[in-house]
Amino acid sequence: MDKNKKNGSYALRRTVVWGDCDPAGIIYTPRVFDYATETLEAFFRDVLGVNWADLNWKLHLGSPTVSAQCEFLKPMKPDLVIDVSVAVEKIGNSSVIFVMDGRDEAGAHYFRATYVTCFIARPDFKSTPIPDSFREKMIAYQGVGGGV
Amino acid sequence: MDKNKKNGSYALRRTVVWGDCDPAGIIYTPRVFDYATETLEAFFRDVLGVNWADLNWKLHLGSPTVSAQCEFLKPMKPDLVIDVSVAVEKIGNSSVIFVMDGRDEAGAHYFRATYVTCFIARPDFKSTPIPDSFREKMIAYQGVGGGV
Amino acid sequence: MDKNKKNGSYALRRTVVWGDCDPAGIIYTPRVFDYATETLEAFFRDVLGVNWADLNWKLHLGSPTVSAQCEFLKPMKPDLVIDVSVAVEKIGNSSVIFVMDGRDEAGAHYFRATYVTCFIARPDFKSTPIPDSFREKMIAYQGVGGGV
Amino acid sequence: MDKNKKNGSYALRRTVVWGDCDPAGIIYTPRVFDYATETLEAFFRDVLGVNWADLNWKLHLGSPTVSAQCEFLKPMKPDLVIDVSVAVEKIGNSSVIFVMDGRDEAGAHYFRATYVTCFIARPDFKSTPIPDSFREKMIAYQGVGGGV
Repeated sequence: MDKNKKNGSYALRRTVVWGDCDPAGIIYTPRVFDYATETLEAFFRDVLGVNWADLNWKLHLGSPTVSAQCEFLKPMKPDLVIDVSVAVEKIGNSSVIFVMDGRDEAGAHYFRATYVTCFIARPDFKSTPIPDSFREKMIAYQGVGGGV
Repeated sequence: MDKNKKNGSYALRRTVVWGDCDPAGIIYTPRVFDYATETLEAFFRDVLGVNWADLNWKLHLGSPTVSAQCEFLKPMKPDLVIDVSVAVEKIGNSSVIFVMDGRDEAGAHYFRATYVTCFIARPDFKSTPIPDSFREKMIAYQGVGGGV
Repeated sequence: MDKNKKNGSYALRRTVVWGDCDPAGIIYTPRVFDYATETLEAFFRDVLGVNWADLNWKLHLGSPTVSAQCEFLKPMKPDLVIDVSVAVEKIGNSSVIFVMDGRDEAGAHYFRATYVTCFIARPDFKSTPIPDSFREKMIAYQGVGGGV
Repeated sequence: MDKNKKNGSYALRRTVVWGDCDPAGIIYTPRVFDYATETLEAFFRDVLGVNWADLNWKLHLGSPTVSAQCEFLKPMKPDLVIDVSVAVEKIGNSSVIFVMDGRDEAGAHYFRATYVTCFIARPDFKSTPIPDSFREKMIAYQGVGGGV
């Protein structure tokens, strides 16, 4: 990842594993959401600077998913190496729309997942404004190419 | 399941297991798609009369997911018993829109997942018209309350 | 489940789902441990009378796995219906050996999983004697056929 | 990985993800078998020179797990970075014993998984002698430190 690169966005590389695929030989639908969610978790850690353990237990916040959607553009098979990128599409008061795209090295587009994530405060789980430090980092990230 | 019941729809009951939930104590986002997909698999077997193994290896068809979406309406915790129902929202030429809702016995609504599923023919994976027998069963199912 | 039946043991029925199987068409190795663990969770709830949420947050205990082993006796394929039974093999001071067997209705034996589970006390996670009420229930369970 | 390094063994680095952990905050037992199996898959690809898709569909072989065992030595939490190494413990006629160890960078030992893997020939799934090329590569691997 090169956060400072113009037109660059954060991405996590992974290989489609055998066990993520079903007897039809292609990825099992729910596993793509594992890919998207794990990439979003890494984005929080590497770009926003907070891992989900600290977000929950030190900051007493949470970021549950309000809605998750995925378009399956090309079937994925075992051994495929894909880069799952994160874009910050929209920053609201307490919610953010993230877009995770899966592409191979040649640029072929395999899936696009869109998550609406809401920040909540513990212990009552009510929605809370996005902390300023996260907001600033996301705006900066959009500025260096991390938007949609 | 009572396929013949007026205003009734097919549903699969399940208990949220400990391992489906994350350290925040609520269900991990991707696991809800496991619930939705497993229920759709059971619907194919129990209502359309074909399991996915036979669909693939005997009929040389497949039913990949084109898009999957889920709205998370209420957090789900371990031991929650939910009924995941299937509704046939729209029947196209080769694709179907299925809606899977998760509710507890009191009727509280936990999630709504919407899948666009496309019928394809093997080995070239091109889209193919929905077989008549499946179409008829889905129309009949809508007629007894299995629509949205 | 019929806890009172002589020579009977607790079992959880499940259907092997499409997504638990890999491109070779048989169950993916790690998924069998999901089956075993989920059955053990249900055994705690239904036979020992405590779900894992209460075990952790009300009793301030835990039951982590010290070791887990499985012998794969017959390949499992999608749509197979198996009953996963629980036997209490040995009750120690703070640990228990559980054996989970997967069999179909005809009695064919698909897997045998053996778990060593240790009771620990929160928050320091040190091993602690098995609570008397659990010990008594497990001894009674062995008495009605729930041993190995 | 440096296959040529004396006393070196193949290892795959991974970060424990949020969704691999359960409400007790530590890794859910079955997920460790995902780690071990995925590392073994990578070992086949990177050290034996065959991915599981080619093993199955081009060589008409398979490598099902006969037994799998894991000792949980230290609890794993989200964000932990572990290297999962592969050792070839014993090479039989048609079966191999692999040992996968999970350690962090400081050398702390989190788990040891032992798999007995059997080579089978398709389509009848009968055990078959380990192909010579694989046997030679595993012996060479043991010679450069990849034994137990």
